[in-house]
Amino acid sequence: MSRVYERVALIGLGLIASSMAHAMRAQGLAGHIAGHAKTAESRQAALDIGFCDTVHSTAAEAVADADLVVLAVPVGAMGEVAAEIAPYLKPGCTVTDVGSVKGAVVEAVAPQVPQGVQFIPGHPMAGTEYSGPHSGFAALFRNRWWLLTPLEGTDPAALDRLRRLVEGLGAKVDTMEVAHHDLVVAVVSHAPHLIAYTMVGVADHMRRVSSSEIIQYSAAGFRDFTRIAASDPTMWRDVFLTNREAVLDILGRFNEELFMLQRAIRMGDGEQLHAYFTRTRAIRRGIIEAGQDTAAPDFGRVGDSVRKD
Amino acid sequence: MSRVYERVALIGLGLIASSMAHAMRAQGLAGHIAGHAKTAESRQAALDIGFCDTVHSTAAEAVADADLVVLAVPVGAMGEVAAEIAPYLKPGCTVTDVGSVKGAVVEAVAPQVPQGVQFIPGHPMAGTEYSGPHSGFAALFRNRWWLLTPLEGTDPAALDRLRRLVEGLGAKVDTMEVAHHDLVVAVVSHAPHLIAYTMVGVADHMRRVSSSEIIQYSAAGFRDFTRIAASDPTMWRDVFLTNREAVLDILGRFNEELFMLQRAIRMGDGEQLHAYFTRTRAIRRGIIEAGQDTAAPDFGRVGDSVRKD
Ligand SMILES: NC(=O)c1ccc[n+]([C@@H]2O[C@H](COP(=O)([O-])OP(=O)(O)OC[C@H]3O[C@@H](n4cnc5c(N)ncnc54)[C@H](OP(=O)(O)O)[C@@H]3O)[C@@H](O)[C@H]2O)c1
Ligand SMILES: NC(=O)c1ccc[n+]([C@@H]2O[C@H](COP(=O)([O-])OP(=O)(O)OC[C@H]3O[C@@H](n4cnc5c(N)ncnc54)[C@H](OP(=O)(O)O)[C@@H]3O)[C@@H](O)[C@H]2O)c1
Repeated sequence: MSRVYERVALIGLGLIASSMAHAMRAQGLAGHIAGHAKTAESRQAALDIGFCDTVHSTAAEAVADADLVVLAVPVGAMGEVAAEIAPYLKPGCTVTDVGSVKGAVVEAVAPQVPQGVQFIPGHPMAGTEYSGPHSGFAALFRNRWWLLTPLEGTDPAALDRLRRLVEGLGAKVDTMEVAHHDLVVAVVSHAPHLIAYTMVGVADHMRRVSSSEIIQYSAAGFRDFTRIAASDPTMWRDVFLTNREAVLDILGRFNEELFMLQRAIRMGDGEQLHAYFTRTRAIRRGIIEAGQDTAAPDFGRVGDSVRKD
Repeated sequence: MSRVYERVALIGLGLIASSMAHAMRAQGLAGHIAGHAKTAESRQAALDIGFCDTVHSTAAEAVADADLVVLAVPVGAMGEVAAEIAPYLKPGCTVTDVGSVKGAVVEAVAPQVPQGVQFIPGHPMAGTEYSGPHSGFAALFRNRWWLLTPLEGTDPAALDRLRRLVEGLGAKVDTMEVAHHDLVVAVVSHAPHLIAYTMVGVADHMRRVSSSEIIQYSAAGFRDFTRIAASDPTMWRDVFLTNREAVLDILGRFNEELFMLQRAIRMGDGEQLHAYFTRTRAIRRGIIEAGQDTAAPDFGRVGDSVRKD
């Protein structure tokens, strides 16, 4: 793989940024990687791990002379960061972001981007439940989708170059309208996360079932929810606050369906339950056939794989 | 490991029964394994795979002379099977079951068990999203909990012997009151399953997001729900119909919490969301420390592990 950008600046040095840096290094996609994070601790960690060539105490310094600037901070911090760096952006450079919500980021960032700078919003559909500079690894994006939501008037050459970088990271690129993106992720990511948080919260509040029982017997289904509900609170607070409408829309539908199933349980309507559970199976088959998950039973976690002793 | 029962009869030859058979074989826990399933197809499969020594076309024949009879059929079929085998049970033998609900099984089975036969209800807290005779494997129960809910008057020697078998399968045994069992599993298993089914159903019904988009982008959280929602419809219909009260109790609490979080999103109450998401993290930590799940990011599914190409 050959160099795509001479100088890349990463603003935010957490899971996504550090994974990008590791993969850019491994593939030789960037000549120089400059970084900035809010705390001195994270900046030092980036230097210690070694995924940045230089680390800067302000975002303004980090973006100086960069050909690509990646905003990899929580969605709620994008506007503030954009305002800070705007005066220091090199003419002709590209700014992208990796936020999980696109509408709110476009609203907060686009008006601040100076003439002559390309802003191309993006969203890597990859992640884990961990965060911070120590959580990154080069394979994170491999075979995953990276959605770009280019705005009107985007320079095709700049878009093409960013696409080459993202593909170099191992991801598959798709482009999408901003609003449609926010609806899609509300279904496949945001609503499932809120529901997982809720279920874990319910278990946490039970008085008649002790938390040691919940922990011991979690393998029965609940532990999958706990993994999702272990994700970074700041990131997810920002996601729900900024993709509010789409999330509330999906949750409204969820409530309707859940009430229908609750009613079927109460009425003893086994046929309705059986028919519903049969339909949902087909989606799983599609996901496995599309190579988006493993077909191994229980994600391959069975038996020894999970033992600690 | 030495032989615990001379002759074991498995009624039902699906995931749980076939996994038990494989593990009993591997550990030499049973002298002879007799089996029965409803369809000739499953009975033939058990013979072809070879996890039964003999297969019988009726449950009555299968239990003849057995020292341990394991009812491994859907919860809704337990009563009918118990009625069929009752006259043929060997005096002094033990009957156990592996149903996911205990109250309803005890109600359906206990009254039919003849004097001189021990009925000890049980529930292995282990499973996958697959079912049928081909889905079993010996390691399924390894390091997993197997709950026994002995009734009043159970012979301690019979209980001890069953415990030895279950431990021989690799599981850890705990005993519990029937009603408490049903509440615990409603929290850690039944409610999470219904919620997963519901979320997958919602996605399936969306018109503005195509199912190919849902499948493609499922890695963002949704695919964990689809795995759970791919479980056997008959088994789960029976679970919800027979553990109705505990499940509706938990779902009621779930609705309350979800409404509270929806309201926080609508009102833009970031502090409440952040505090909620921070608390739920602790439970995940407990589960990993208890050895009940892997700490590997995203269950270790990242990058290549899921690639098909
Ligand atoms: N995690 C996922 O699964 C995932 C997936 C796709 C997209 N995303 C998106 O990617 C972005 C980053 O997520 P992440 O998982 O990488 O988060 P993370 O691991 O928590 O890292 C966030 C980084 O942003 C920095 N930061 C926060 N506020 C800042 C500010 N005002 N100025 C400068 N730096 C600031 C933090 O610095 P300190 O460490 O010094 O606090 C940290 O380095 C978010 O917008 C998220 O929505 C996440
Ligand atoms: N799967 C799990 O995750 C899990 C975990 C713990 C406990 N359990 C419990 O274990 C039990 C069995 O579940 P499983 O996953 O092993 O199910 P499974 O793979 O679907 O197998 C069920 C078996 O029961 C047989 N069967 C159904 N009705 C019958 C009848 N009237 N007479 C005789 N055989 C009959 C079926 O025969 P055919 O194949 O011929 O139809 C099949 O062999 C259920 O009570 C379930 O609640 C399941």
